[in-house]
Amino acid sequence: MVNINNFGIIGGDKRQLYCARSIADDGYGVYLYGFDKCDNTLGIEYMELDAILKQCDAFIMPLPVSKDGKTLNAPFSSETIKIDSNFFTRFDGKPLFVGIKNVIPYSYENIYDYGSREEFAVENAVPTSEGAIEYAMREYEGTINSSRCLVAGYGRIGRILSQMLKGLGADVTVSARKLKDLAFIRSCGMKAVMTSDLGKGYDLIFNTIPEMIFDAHTLAHTACGAIVTDLASLPGGVDFEAAERLNIKAIRALSLPGRVAPRTSGIIIKNAVYNIIKEENL
Amino acid sequence: MVNINNFGIIGGDKRQLYCARSIADDGYGVYLYGFDKCDNTLGIEYMELDAILKQCDAFIMPLPVSKDGKTLNAPFSSETIKIDSNFFTRFDGKPLFVGIKNVIPYSYENIYDYGSREEFAVENAVPTSEGAIEYAMREYEGTINSSRCLVAGYGRIGRILSQMLKGLGADVTVSARKLKDLAFIRSCGMKAVMTSDLGKGYDLIFNTIPEMIFDAHTLAHTACGAIVTDLASLPGGVDFEAAERLNIKAIRALSLPGRVAPRTSGIIIKNAVYNIIKEENL
Amino acid sequence: MVNINNFGIIGGDKRQLYCARSIADDGYGVYLYGFDKCDNTLGIEYMELDAILKQCDAFIMPLPVSKDGKTLNAPFSSETIKIDSNFFTRFDGKPLFVGIKNVIPYSYENIYDYGSREEFAVENAVPTSEGAIEYAMREYEGTINSSRCLVAGYGRIGRILSQMLKGLGADVTVSARKLKDLAFIRSCGMKAVMTSDLGKGYDLIFNTIPEMIFDAHTLAHTACGAIVTDLASLPGGVDFEAAERLNIKAIRALSLPGRVAPRTSGIIIKNAVYNIIKEENL
Amino acid sequence: MVNINNFGIIGGDKRQLYCARSIADDGYGVYLYGFDKCDNTLGIEYMELDAILKQCDAFIMPLPVSKDGKTLNAPFSSETIKIDSNFFTRFDGKPLFVGIKNVIPYSYENIYDYGSREEFAVENAVPTSEGAIEYAMREYEGTINSSRCLVAGYGRIGRILSQMLKGLGADVTVSARKLKDLAFIRSCGMKAVMTSDLGKGYDLIFNTIPEMIFDAHTLAHTACGAIVTDLASLPGGVDFEAAERLNIKAIRALSLPGRVAPRTSGIIIKNAVYNIIKEENL
Repeated sequence: MVNINNFGIIGGDKRQLYCARSIADDGYGVYLYGFDKCDNTLGIEYMELDAILKQCDAFIMPLPVSKDGKTLNAPFSSETIKIDSNFFTRFDGKPLFVGIKNVIPYSYENIYDYGSREEFAVENAVPTSEGAIEYAMREYEGTINSSRCLVAGYGRIGRILSQMLKGLGADVTVSARKLKDLAFIRSCGMKAVMTSDLGKGYDLIFNTIPEMIFDAHTLAHTACGAIVTDLASLPGGVDFEAAERLNIKAIRALSLPGRVAPRTSGIIIKNAVYNIIKEENL
Repeated sequence: MVNINNFGIIGGDKRQLYCARSIADDGYGVYLYGFDKCDNTLGIEYMELDAILKQCDAFIMPLPVSKDGKTLNAPFSSETIKIDSNFFTRFDGKPLFVGIKNVIPYSYENIYDYGSREEFAVENAVPTSEGAIEYAMREYEGTINSSRCLVAGYGRIGRILSQMLKGLGADVTVSARKLKDLAFIRSCGMKAVMTSDLGKGYDLIFNTIPEMIFDAHTLAHTACGAIVTDLASLPGGVDFEAAERLNIKAIRALSLPGRVAPRTSGIIIKNAVYNIIKEENL
Repeated sequence: MVNINNFGIIGGDKRQLYCARSIADDGYGVYLYGFDKCDNTLGIEYMELDAILKQCDAFIMPLPVSKDGKTLNAPFSSETIKIDSNFFTRFDGKPLFVGIKNVIPYSYENIYDYGSREEFAVENAVPTSEGAIEYAMREYEGTINSSRCLVAGYGRIGRILSQMLKGLGADVTVSARKLKDLAFIRSCGMKAVMTSDLGKGYDLIFNTIPEMIFDAHTLAHTACGAIVTDLASLPGGVDFEAAERLNIKAIRALSLPGRVAPRTSGIIIKNAVYNIIKEENL
Repeated sequence: MVNINNFGIIGGDKRQLYCARSIADDGYGVYLYGFDKCDNTLGIEYMELDAILKQCDAFIMPLPVSKDGKTLNAPFSSETIKIDSNFFTRFDGKPLFVGIKNVIPYSYENIYDYGSREEFAVENAVPTSEGAIEYAMREYEGTINSSRCLVAGYGRIGRILSQMLKGLGADVTVSARKLKDLAFIRSCGMKAVMTSDLGKGYDLIFNTIPEMIFDAHTLAHTACGAIVTDLASLPGGVDFEAAERLNIKAIRALSLPGRVAPRTSGIIIKNAVYNIIKEENL
C-alpha cells in the first residue's frame, strides 16, 4: 500500500463508519464525506467534498453505492449527492472502491468492486448467519439448544449457519442437492437430506437457497409448526402468502450484516479493500 | 404416575401454559385456573376454582409461587388470589408442586418445591445462556463469532454459556477459582484465567458469579470497551453505577428463561414435576 | 434397484468383505469370488467363478481393480486372476462396478467407476482424517488436545481433518491459497494462513496438498520440532530426505481408509455403488 | 519459587524426563538420578546421588513413587534404590514431591503428594481420554466418526472423553446416575441415559466407572457387537471373562497418560509441583 496514505469514505451507513474507524486504527489518515447528519462518527473527521478529494489518495463508497442509479447511497447526508459524470470526474482518476459497481451509470477507469469478491461473500455469511440466529431466538419461544433445525442449502451461509446452530446444541439437518455435499454434512455429525425431500418435524427452518423452495406444498409438508426464516436474496425462496394461509410464521431476513453487526460488516469491507490494493499493487 | 391422571395449573405466566401444553401432549388431563385474561391458552381448558379442585389429582403453581408472600403469582388472572390457610385447605391434601415453597406463609403437608432441584437449575442454565447470547447479539455491533468473550465463573451457567459461545466461533476465556476448573476449561480448548486475575482485551463479558466481581476497579481494568452482561441473581456482580461512570455498557439480565424461552422453561418445569412424582411414588 | 437381486463381489481385501456384509444386511443376495485364502468372510458365501457369474446380476470389483493392469487385485485369492478380454466376456454384459476403471486394458460396455465419484472422495476423507489422527497419536508423545497443529490445504481432507483436530481440543491453523477459503477457516474459529507463508511453532503438521509444499526450505522454517504426516497421494508433498537430514520425523500415510477403517471403507463403496444404480436406473 | 533454583528428578520413566525437560525450559537447573540406563535424557544432565542431593533444593519422584513399598519406581536405573529411612534422611528435610506418598513406609516431614491433587486428576483425564480413543481407533474397523458410542459415567474422564468423541463426529450417549448430570449431558447435544438403563446398539463402549457396571448381564444386553474399553482403575468395571464368553472384544486400558502421552504427562506433573510450591510458599 505504498501509494495510499489517506482514505476518503464517501457516503454509506454505520458500516462505512466502522470501516473508517478500523482503517484509522491501522494508522492511515481517514476522512468522511456524506455524514453530516451523523451524531457520532467514531472519532473520524468530517470534511467537505473539495477538501476530501484533495486530501485523500483513494475513496471507499458504500454497498450498494447507489440504490437508484442516480444518487449516492448516503443515509447520513443531509443533501442528495448525484453520481453523474461530473461527480466521478472530480475524483481525478484516483482509485475508487465501491460495492456493486454496475449500478453506476458511468464508466470510471480506476474503480474496484469489493462487493463482488468471493472472500467478501464468505466473510459476510458470518454476520448473516448470526443475524438469522438472533432473529430466530427473538421469535421462537423455545431454545435453539435441543431444537430441531433445518437449514435448506449448503452454500456459504448454509455451511456457516449449520455449524453455529450445532455449536448452540441444536439437532441440525441440512439439505443439499449434490451427493458430495450430503457427505460433507454427515462428516460434521449433522443429518443430511436431499433438497427435493426435506422431511418434516422441524422447529426452526432457515432457507438459504435463492429459488422458490418453500412453496405452498413444501410449506404444508415440511414447515407445519415451525418458524421459517428466509435468508435468500429477493425474490427469496419462501411463499409468504401461503405461509400466512397455513398459519406458519415466516420471516424475511434481508441485509442482515449491516443490521445486526455493522462493526463486523465495516471490517469486512476494509479487508476486501485491502485485498484489492494488494492484488492490484495500488 | 399411577395416582395422577389430571393436573391443575394454578396461576403463573406463559411458562405454565407451555408446561400445561406439554403435559397434555403426554396424554394427561390438564386444566387451568388463574388465566382468564389470557387470549391464547394453547388449547388448554379453563376452569373455575371449585371445578378444578374437584377434577384434578395434583396441582402445579408457578415459580415463584408468590412475589409478596400473600397472593399467588398470577399475571393472567383478573382477580387477586390470596394464598392464605383457607386457600391451601381447599386443596384437600392433594400434591402441590410449586417453585420456591418457602415464600408461602403456610405449611401444607403434601407440597414439593421443583425450583430447588439441581437438575432444574442445570436445565434452566440452557435458556439463561441462550438469553444472554441473544441480549449480547442485540447490543453488540460486531458478531459473537471471532469476538473475544470472557465468562466469569464456571458453575452451571458458565459451563453451558462458554460452550455455546465457542460453538458460535468466539474466542472464549473463562474464569474460575479452583485449579481443577481451570483444567476443565483448558481441556475444552478455551483459555482459563483465575477469577482474581481476569486480564483485559474483551469485547463481551458475561458475569455468572453472585458476588461483587466487577467493582469499579475491575471494570476499569478488565471491561474498557466491552459490553458487560450480569447474569448473577440480585444483588448481582456488577457495579452498574461505576460502569456508567466509566462509560461501559452494562446489562442486567435477570429471569431470562421465562423471558426468552417460555416454552422450554415450561417443559423444564414439567420435567422437574415428573421427576418428583417418580422419586416420591406419587 | 429393480433388476439387481444378487451381487457378486470379485476380488479385493477386507473392504470388499465389509461391502459385501453391508449389502447382505440390506437384504440382497451376496456371493464372493477370489477370497479362498480368507479365514473369516463375515458370513458371506464363497462361490466358484462359473456359479457366481450365473447367480449374480451385478458385480463389484476392488479399488484399484488391478495394480498391474493385467491381473485382478485379489490379495485373498490363492490363484492369479487375469483380467483379459476373455475374463470380461464371461460377465455377459451385466453391470460391473470397479474402482479406477482406466487401469483395465479392455473396454467393457456396462462398467461403472465408483472410485471417480465426488461423494466417494468426500466420504473417504473421513477415514483418511481419522487415520492421520491415529498415526499422529501413535507417534506423538504429547496429546492432540492443546497441541499446535497445522493442516496444509483446505480441500476435502483439510476441511474434515481440521474440524476433527479442533474437536479434540487442538489449537488448529489451516493453510489455503484462496482468500475465500481463509474466510471459511476463520469462521470455524481456526487460524488461517496462506499456503505460501505457513509460519512456525507447530507440534503436528499434516500435509494434504499433492505438490512439493514441504521442501527442505519450508521444512527448516516451519517444521522444526514437529511431526509431519504426508497425506497427499504419491509423489506426495514432503521431501522425506530433507526431513531426515533436518532430524524432523516425517510419516508417509497412504491408503488410510482401507488400513484403519476397512468396515467404513466397505460401506462407502456400497454407498457409491447404490448411488450409481439409482442414477443409471440399473 | 524464591527458594528453589535447582530440581533433582529422582527415578521414574519417560514422564519424569519430560517433566525435567519442561522445568529446564522454564530456566531452572534440573538434574537426574536413577536414569543411567536411559539412552536419551532429552539433554538433561545425569548426576550421582551425593552430587544431586547437594546440588538441588527440591526433588521430584515418580507416580507411584514405589510399586512395592520398598524400592523406588525407577525403571531406567540399573540398580535397585531402597526407600528406607536411611534414604530419606539423606534429603536433609528439603522438599520432596511424590506421586501417592502413602506407599512410602517412612514419614518425611517436607513431603508433598502431587498425585492426590484434583487439578492433576482433571489434567490427566485428557491423555487418558485420548489414549482411550487411540486404542479404540486401533481395534475398531470402522471410524469413530458416525459410530455410536456409549460413555458410562460422567466424572472427569466421562466429561472430557465424551466431548472428544463428539468432536470427532461420533453419535455419543453418556450415562450418569444424577439427574443434574443427565441435564448437563443433554445441554452438550449428546444423548443421556441412566447408568442403570444403558440401552443398546453401540459400536464402542467406554467404561469410566470404578464399579462392576458391565457384568455378564449388562454385557449381554448392552454390548453385543461392540468393543468395550475399560478405563476404570483396578479392579475395573468390566467382567472380562463374561466378555470372552459372549464373544465381545474388551480392552483393559490402564495407566494411559504415561503410555500414550509421556510428554503431556510430564508437564502435568510439573504443573502440579508448581501449584504446590505456590500454595505452600516453598
